Amino acid sequence: MSKLRATMAISLDGFGAGPDQSVDTALGVGGERLHEWMIPLAVFREMHGEGGGEGEVNASTAVVRGWWENMGAVVMGRNMFGGGPGPWRGDWRGWWDENPPYHVPVFVLTHHPREPVQMQGGTTFHFATEGIEATLKLATEAAGGKDVWLAGGASVIQQYLRAGLLDEIEISLTPVLLGRGERLFADLDESNIELEQIRSIKRPASPTSSTA
Amino acid sequence: MSKLRATMAISLDGFGAGPDQSVDTALGVGGERLHEWMIPLAVFREMHGEGGGEGEVNASTAVVRGWWENMGAVVMGRNMFGGGPGPWRGDWRGWWDENPPYHVPVFVLTHHPREPVQMQGGTTFHFATEGIEATLKLATEAAGGKDVWLAGGASVIQQYLRAGLLDEIEISLTPVLLGRGERLFADLDESNIELEQIRSIKRPASPTSSTA
Repeated sequence: MSKLRATMAISLDGFGAGPDQSVDTALGVGGERLHEWMIPLAVFREMHGEGGGEGEVNASTAVVRGWWENMGAVVMGRNMFGGGPGPWRGDWRGWWDENPPYHVPVFVLTHHPREPVQMQGGTTFHFATEGIEATLKLATEAAGGKDVWLAGGASVIQQYLRAGLLDEIEISLTPVLLGRGERLFADLDESNIELEQIRSIKRPASPTSSTA
Repeated sequence: MSKLRATMAISLDGFGAGPDQSVDTALGVGGERLHEWMIPLAVFREMHGEGGGEGEVNASTAVVRGWWENMGAVVMGRNMFGGGPGPWRGDWRGWWDENPPYHVPVFVLTHHPREPVQMQGGTTFHFATEGIEATLKLATEAAGGKDVWLAGGASVIQQYLRAGLLDEIEISLTPVLLGRGERLFADLDESNIELEQIRSIKRPASPTSSTA
């Protein structure tokens, strides 16, 4: 059965992005540190068309590879797609190049309608204005029995979590303190959401840090 | 060299205790779920004088054992020691029995002076009113070259963290969402605290949850 799976890298103090997000600082101040562990991976470089030959292979490889496995569609928030808030201006086509790493239909949650944008390599951005539930339905249909990847950001994951529509959530915890930013888990209030641990993967120490 | 080491179990959404802490609900509503992983461990039962024979042994054993290793003194907050806020009333001697699991001098941070309380098994509770820095000095002297364990709670750990006095922090992340409560990492503001990963231990799945 098709599942809705969310993934997010967060700081030790719980932030999925740093403060003061902007077009120049998409992940907020310091937010890029949350992704440093994945950038050097061969599997990540391959997915982004950079050639995996020189990349690293470690325990995080299976994590990143898993994001694409049995994945038939993507849902993401407007902020993750980018282009600023409000009505669409110019021809913003996402943070990626002409061949985005998704290779499936991507549904961007927005209040502002826009024609679909077809990219190279199988990625088409659809702009979904009917809310999270209707968008999940569209994405699930598009996925054709495969899973739907809820790629972020924090706000959208929270909305699906609160609505009880999320099947799995995968947290990549990074030993960084951002101090401020956008919390993945803001105050949920009297949470009645029950989780079951599926797996836990030991984070490889970075090459520059010592181990004990 | 003597180190100040903090430990804390937190929920996936970052809370070290649930909401509405009281004498009856020391860890706040739902807070006891943060410690469920350690209660059945043989090493935990031994430390609390319950007989370790029937307890479990798994990857968490070394974590719990490590709290007592090379540990010469303990610092904890008033709330963790208990007895309610404000001046001391009655003869509150902590949440533990006559033989607390520490077996070293324990310094309780408080604004309210009180004579030391000597318990069985080597634990003496000292009530330290001179602030976090002076208390750490007292505890370090008492530890005689061994480490000082900062046992909690969240507020006290934050104070030492902000003051740059913490050498190590160990987080036991539990796949529970509490929704509300006391955050271990409240907003630190423009954090300039740099961490280095020492180790990462895969959390054993609980016996009642399936693995994948």
